[in-house]
Amino acid sequence: MFDPVEKLKEYVRHPSISADSKFKEGMVGAREFVAGLLTSIGFSVEMAATDLHPIILAKRTGPETWPHVIIYGHYDVQPADPLSLWTSAPFEPEIRGNRMYGRGTADNKGPLMAHIAGVASLLERRPDLPLRITFLIEGEEEMGSPSFSGFLAKYRDRLKADFVLLSDTGIPSEDQVVITCGLRGLMLFDLEVTGSKTDLHSGLHGGVLRNPIQALAEICASLHTPDGRVNIPGYYDDVLDVEPWERQELAKLSGDAESYRNFLGIRKFHTPPGYSPFEAVRFLPTLEFNGIGGGYQGEGTKTVIPSKAFAKISCRLVGNQDPEKIRELVYRTVRERAPDDVSIRIVDQHSGIPYVVVPPGRSNTPKDQSPVLARAFRAADAAIAGVFGKPPLYLREGGSVPIIGEIKKILGLDSLMMGLFLPEDNLHAPNESFHLGILKKGIQASERILESVAGVR
Amino acid sequence: MFDPVEKLKEYVRHPSISADSKFKEGMVGAREFVAGLLTSIGFSVEMAATDLHPIILAKRTGPETWPHVIIYGHYDVQPADPLSLWTSAPFEPEIRGNRMYGRGTADNKGPLMAHIAGVASLLERRPDLPLRITFLIEGEEEMGSPSFSGFLAKYRDRLKADFVLLSDTGIPSEDQVVITCGLRGLMLFDLEVTGSKTDLHSGLHGGVLRNPIQALAEICASLHTPDGRVNIPGYYDDVLDVEPWERQELAKLSGDAESYRNFLGIRKFHTPPGYSPFEAVRFLPTLEFNGIGGGYQGEGTKTVIPSKAFAKISCRLVGNQDPEKIRELVYRTVRERAPDDVSIRIVDQHSGIPYVVVPPGRSNTPKDQSPVLARAFRAADAAIAGVFGKPPLYLREGGSVPIIGEIKKILGLDSLMMGLFLPEDNLHAPNESFHLGILKKGIQASERILESVAGVR
Repeated sequence: MFDPVEKLKEYVRHPSISADSKFKEGMVGAREFVAGLLTSIGFSVEMAATDLHPIILAKRTGPETWPHVIIYGHYDVQPADPLSLWTSAPFEPEIRGNRMYGRGTADNKGPLMAHIAGVASLLERRPDLPLRITFLIEGEEEMGSPSFSGFLAKYRDRLKADFVLLSDTGIPSEDQVVITCGLRGLMLFDLEVTGSKTDLHSGLHGGVLRNPIQALAEICASLHTPDGRVNIPGYYDDVLDVEPWERQELAKLSGDAESYRNFLGIRKFHTPPGYSPFEAVRFLPTLEFNGIGGGYQGEGTKTVIPSKAFAKISCRLVGNQDPEKIRELVYRTVRERAPDDVSIRIVDQHSGIPYVVVPPGRSNTPKDQSPVLARAFRAADAAIAGVFGKPPLYLREGGSVPIIGEIKKILGLDSLMMGLFLPEDNLHAPNESFHLGILKKGIQASERILESVAGVR
Repeated sequence: MFDPVEKLKEYVRHPSISADSKFKEGMVGAREFVAGLLTSIGFSVEMAATDLHPIILAKRTGPETWPHVIIYGHYDVQPADPLSLWTSAPFEPEIRGNRMYGRGTADNKGPLMAHIAGVASLLERRPDLPLRITFLIEGEEEMGSPSFSGFLAKYRDRLKADFVLLSDTGIPSEDQVVITCGLRGLMLFDLEVTGSKTDLHSGLHGGVLRNPIQALAEICASLHTPDGRVNIPGYYDDVLDVEPWERQELAKLSGDAESYRNFLGIRKFHTPPGYSPFEAVRFLPTLEFNGIGGGYQGEGTKTVIPSKAFAKISCRLVGNQDPEKIRELVYRTVRERAPDDVSIRIVDQHSGIPYVVVPPGRSNTPKDQSPVLARAFRAADAAIAGVFGKPPLYLREGGSVPIIGEIKKILGLDSLMMGLFLPEDNLHAPNESFHLGILKKGIQASERILESVAGVR
């Protein structure tokens, strides 16, 4: 079998920055590298064209009676700047201590390599493994996966499977793997308020009209209750109750609220009653102001009444909130609360579906959970406990990976998200690195999980 | 006597932009031009040094029994850009129709020329005029007169006079002069709100802290009542009652609210109960948001919880509000209303004292009004009626000329503000111009007023 560390080095050397068209060669290089590697272990590889970067679809086929797992990954990486902050060049991977440094080592080339090498090792050992495997590796993840849902819809019939396996989430420490069981969704929009048709002199006209910044502040201030909830009728209607096992599982993360508060550098937490900060970020939706602007923002003063002001707003959503239903509720509320002496304009931005999967054997596990998915979760639990020395934690996360919700919506498939990167891996930042011990254990865990899913372990 | 139109042309040719150090030569040129002109009509001229641009002090002395008038003006002008929008070059004055075009023609070179030429004509006719006259012409008005109050304090003893005469305010139409009897004051500050110590990912941390934009919106939204008043305890305590004569005088301006609304391009007025828009802008204080900013303001989205957000706030004040007392009230209210989970920082900006003078013979004319001031107002009324064909209107204005309040505070002098520029004169904008008919009438009115003040007309 190939040496996964050497192969990861080769892979990282291709500067596959999807967002920057100057890196087209790096994108092609990374794509062809992965395609070649998968071909070398017996997969038949196809490139699915998109408007931007093709998606790699690599199959190991077999009888329909064999379970079918889709392994997701992405071959694109974040931009590397600021280059001056890197100790070694981002696309010249360097091993220092037990880590490999380079852009994409952790997000997502290293974790994907764990699965490719796990599959390679397993197939070498069991060439007759009764398991269908499809690698689905996109090249636009770091751009928000604009082509992904269209691809899923188009390839739906060829992506009939039992579940999706991926490693593109985080873990708190080297020996504590987390299986991510929930992701928040998103609904974003811009709100623009217009008062007068041009900026006005605040002396000559101040006092006759409502300043659009005032109107915007009034609308924005109405969107939360004093206790920290979102103040929009119906907003919480579809929010899943938090199960006791979820709180217990989270408590094992042994978070110290005071350390977290110091890390954030805030005076106080501001969470709705009944939720710790660790719970609030995972189990509750939010409405955040990502930006606000209007009028004069420079040094000193300018006594102007601006014509316009705007806010950029994002809602993080949890299961089972529907982003488009929330969009309607929020827009209706904003329109109702806008004073009638200004005009408002709402600009849609993107949205993402929240996601929740419940492992087998929990109080809220769906009765109709697929047997293969249940087997995969049990296999992951045993494999992780065996390889890492501790069973995984099953946690929902505060962040969003909208493609997981898309996969569920379009393909009807749940995802087994085995986290592999650490907080200190510096994702999206200079000196990104991946822990080679975790790479090794990830390979072993992937191999064992797939062997169990195939029913031969 | 000199030709005032030719002299105004010469004067405008000096590009005296005070705010731009590249125009030092223009500043020197304009200053020496005025000094020379005043010397030529018999004044002894002195330049009072400041940190930036010297103040011209030109005196016609006489026995202490003669009344003493200070005539105020400024020799500096606004920047001329955008140059591409000028029909003729801003510093090559050109007469088209009955107007002279050029930067500073209306603000303030033309109106000041009216007084210089009025004085010149009067002294030619009456060389023995029993009137002390001091021209006080500053060079930093367009920068906010930073040196002016220091100058007044330093020269206080040499500026003992009966009143100040100036023309640096506007009139609604060619035949309707306004004597400005009130100006609003100012109190400005920046409010900055800080939540976390750095920007945060809204997925990883959203839900545990109050977003500083939210806190800022909540504070800002609390600063007005729904009916349009400023919601700060004590804010209106010192606001002068509006006298019936003031409302009657204003009604003569025959403003049409619907035209004004269309001019502003607003859906509705938003004025406190009991005040028309024309009244609200003159008789009531305001609190305006001149700017707001925080977080991501670019295209698309960025799911960030910003560390900081800020607003730039200005209060317009009316007689007899004290800017520093209002500053304390506003700051105290903002601090009280700020939630305790964020930090706020308040940055002082400048302030300006509001001003009110009541012409003689009104219900609220002070009993101790100086006889010379009263004579000057009566003289102005008669002169304007005679020269322009209509008596002037006595109106308070919504704008601010902080030096008028400073003169009152430091020198104890009231000001007779005879407006001379028209809305279409394009002050501070491309194609500034001054109406030569008004220049001519302004000269005659100034001459008659001063002759009456001297007691010889």
